[in-house]
Amino acid sequence: MMKAIQIGLLGLGTVGSGVVKIIKNHQDKLMHQVGCPVVIKKILVQSLHKTRPSEVDPALLTSTPSDILHDPEIDVVIEVMGGVKETKEYLLSALRQGKHVVTANKDLMALHGSELLTVASENGCDLFYEASVAGGIPILRGLVDGLASDRITQMMGIVNGTTNFILTKMSQDGLNYEDVLKEAQELGFAEADPTSDVEGLDAARKMTILATLGFSMNIELDDVQVKGISNITEEDLRYGKQLGYTMKLLGYAHREGEKVEVSVQPTFLSDNHPLASVQNEYNAVYVYGEAVGETMFYGPGAGSLPTATAVVSDLVGVMKNLRLGVNGRSAVTPQYPKRLKDDNEKYSKYFLRIHVQDEVGVFAELTSIFAKYGVSFEKILQLPVKKNETSEIVLVTHKASLTNYDAILYELNDLPAVKEVKSAYRVVRKSI
Amino acid sequence: MMKAIQIGLLGLGTVGSGVVKIIKNHQDKLMHQVGCPVVIKKILVQSLHKTRPSEVDPALLTSTPSDILHDPEIDVVIEVMGGVKETKEYLLSALRQGKHVVTANKDLMALHGSELLTVASENGCDLFYEASVAGGIPILRGLVDGLASDRITQMMGIVNGTTNFILTKMSQDGLNYEDVLKEAQELGFAEADPTSDVEGLDAARKMTILATLGFSMNIELDDVQVKGISNITEEDLRYGKQLGYTMKLLGYAHREGEKVEVSVQPTFLSDNHPLASVQNEYNAVYVYGEAVGETMFYGPGAGSLPTATAVVSDLVGVMKNLRLGVNGRSAVTPQYPKRLKDDNEKYSKYFLRIHVQDEVGVFAELTSIFAKYGVSFEKILQLPVKKNETSEIVLVTHKASLTNYDAILYELNDLPAVKEVKSAYRVVRKSI
Repeated sequence: MMKAIQIGLLGLGTVGSGVVKIIKNHQDKLMHQVGCPVVIKKILVQSLHKTRPSEVDPALLTSTPSDILHDPEIDVVIEVMGGVKETKEYLLSALRQGKHVVTANKDLMALHGSELLTVASENGCDLFYEASVAGGIPILRGLVDGLASDRITQMMGIVNGTTNFILTKMSQDGLNYEDVLKEAQELGFAEADPTSDVEGLDAARKMTILATLGFSMNIELDDVQVKGISNITEEDLRYGKQLGYTMKLLGYAHREGEKVEVSVQPTFLSDNHPLASVQNEYNAVYVYGEAVGETMFYGPGAGSLPTATAVVSDLVGVMKNLRLGVNGRSAVTPQYPKRLKDDNEKYSKYFLRIHVQDEVGVFAELTSIFAKYGVSFEKILQLPVKKNETSEIVLVTHKASLTNYDAILYELNDLPAVKEVKSAYRVVRKSI
Repeated sequence: MMKAIQIGLLGLGTVGSGVVKIIKNHQDKLMHQVGCPVVIKKILVQSLHKTRPSEVDPALLTSTPSDILHDPEIDVVIEVMGGVKETKEYLLSALRQGKHVVTANKDLMALHGSELLTVASENGCDLFYEASVAGGIPILRGLVDGLASDRITQMMGIVNGTTNFILTKMSQDGLNYEDVLKEAQELGFAEADPTSDVEGLDAARKMTILATLGFSMNIELDDVQVKGISNITEEDLRYGKQLGYTMKLLGYAHREGEKVEVSVQPTFLSDNHPLASVQNEYNAVYVYGEAVGETMFYGPGAGSLPTATAVVSDLVGVMKNLRLGVNGRSAVTPQYPKRLKDDNEKYSKYFLRIHVQDEVGVFAELTSIFAKYGVSFEKILQLPVKKNETSEIVLVTHKASLTNYDAILYELNDLPAVKEVKSAYRVVRKSI
């Protein structure tokens, strides 16, 4: 029997407990694949006295990081404790001592992925992070290995389960944002402080990681334009439904020539888009490659066991490399220098809902602004007059540059006849 | 600069031309990933005089297999010529001479995969075959690497584009099978002799490959129960629609305990199942793992460039291994001995459409047969009396074993009051 591969686990929360469970339950399969036993040697926790799942042997627990980071017998460090600053130091220390690392930490990878990967490579170590994006969906391997020969030009992702759950419920039950958020919090699909999810920051971190890999370009978190879902109304969703659109918080990464754009924003997807049918807390990433065309990867974006599956599958990759003696060679440095599109190179269709004075000539005034910027319409709904002499106009534009769109919004808000631009969203149709 | 990796290409049809194009167009990306140039050295064709795509240098063409199989400078053989008997000999010869093999040949892998993989392993060679299942979708890597740590209990696949195109059109346009088949043939989505596609044989070959990998068990083509789509009527699809079902030719692989079942058959999927929205010629494979839960991989199942993407991505895998000196270690022998479920262990819900005499007591007679076998109903539609004193009854059963289902069908056909069992399909709902 070969010597066991020994693991140090940093963190024993939801995902950490899942990792312990999978390594225990699937020991046979792991053994069959890598030819030796896999043993968790130590687990770093904050409190030694908290009650733990029954799978966990209390003798493994430690609250001293160096018990793991400086244990020469530990081959692989699995990081599922979260956090950025301190965690980064732990992982750098582990890598510098020749330990391979598997992490589920999107915040850390989005902010310091490039530095960590460099240190891993310098020390001949693997650093795998499949679980950091879209939980149980093997999307990073899909990009790196499965589509290795293709040139990826577009990635669109529903990569945050909380917001997808909220938007699905709002749309299906005709409820408003606040009520659904409360329900989501009660069901455990949203955190007590939901800001990072509902304002799009969590999705932006994942898009940073995806865009960096998919475009082979060092995309940083600050490069991602972000807008959240907290202003979406149930009324917006109803209009969308009439037009054949489904609202999603969409991560959008697009490459044209040598330039890219990356954003996270509420988006109306046409109902026949493969992403439109992704409901509740599920995630999916749609990838367009020049040769392969449209593909989509669908699955659970979070949760103890799904995320732990991705972590342990990464561990299998590390262990296979260990057995073959080829660790530390998988990190590919970006092929291209970062080049971001300017706003006048970012094109999209837009949905606008505008409240105007119910007067003769207003519609002409309004449309002349769009005409001035060369933007035409795909659809126009003028709706029955409402109270207070207000009329509601719903427009879907043909493609406009972000520069022109911003200018149009500015002029609309300036127009005396416009009472309020109630809402404005990007629109994505079936074909790119 | 490192020495170039040299390729021998067997076949220059649709997929072969795609491979030439991708290797040419994406040379930079390939070079970046593997650190050396990739060169196609020779291409085996049947006719040296046929007109070829402009990317192909005529000097590379040969009609003599040994020009490739016995060229010591060729590192990797890519097989996209199709066929089984002769092709198998070519690949065995290549492997025995230490050449790595990438193949897109599902017929070959379904029939002789196990033997070829053994020979590859004995000779320290890689044998990759991602393109053999679901064209451009990296599903085999998803199973082997992405879900490496999980225990897969169910795979359901729409793995034949021709039949999915036909069923989508029949359902959307209310057309009958023959008319849509003709249209599909004209559009190039169905072959002149469509038997292998429409009778489910093509899908069965792919399910053989998927089940062997996913269950780590040597499943053979003969183990797959197969039924095609040529008897499906537009009327069936209309009834399905009323009940909230979409018809798909579904590859179904299920594991319970140590036993598995694999089949390909027309199946009513409930509309909210992720596979139900996979339309036209697209493919998708739904995978259920004990830990990860539901995942789905979606994309083009065929076509020159999508399939070639999978082939060249496999080539990248071979080349990375070559550079690391670790070829021939990826084939994992099946972990489990083959154990197939008996018919009384295969459970499913069923849809039945039955024409009966319009007489008192017929319905009671009919249902008493189901009761005798302990099968109850989820839904019953008794429909308006039709001409010739015939009444139509549509039933959806709760789960029944295949043994009982077969016995019920036998007795129904024997009942004097039953004019005809018009159709009978498996039903799959959202949750497993």
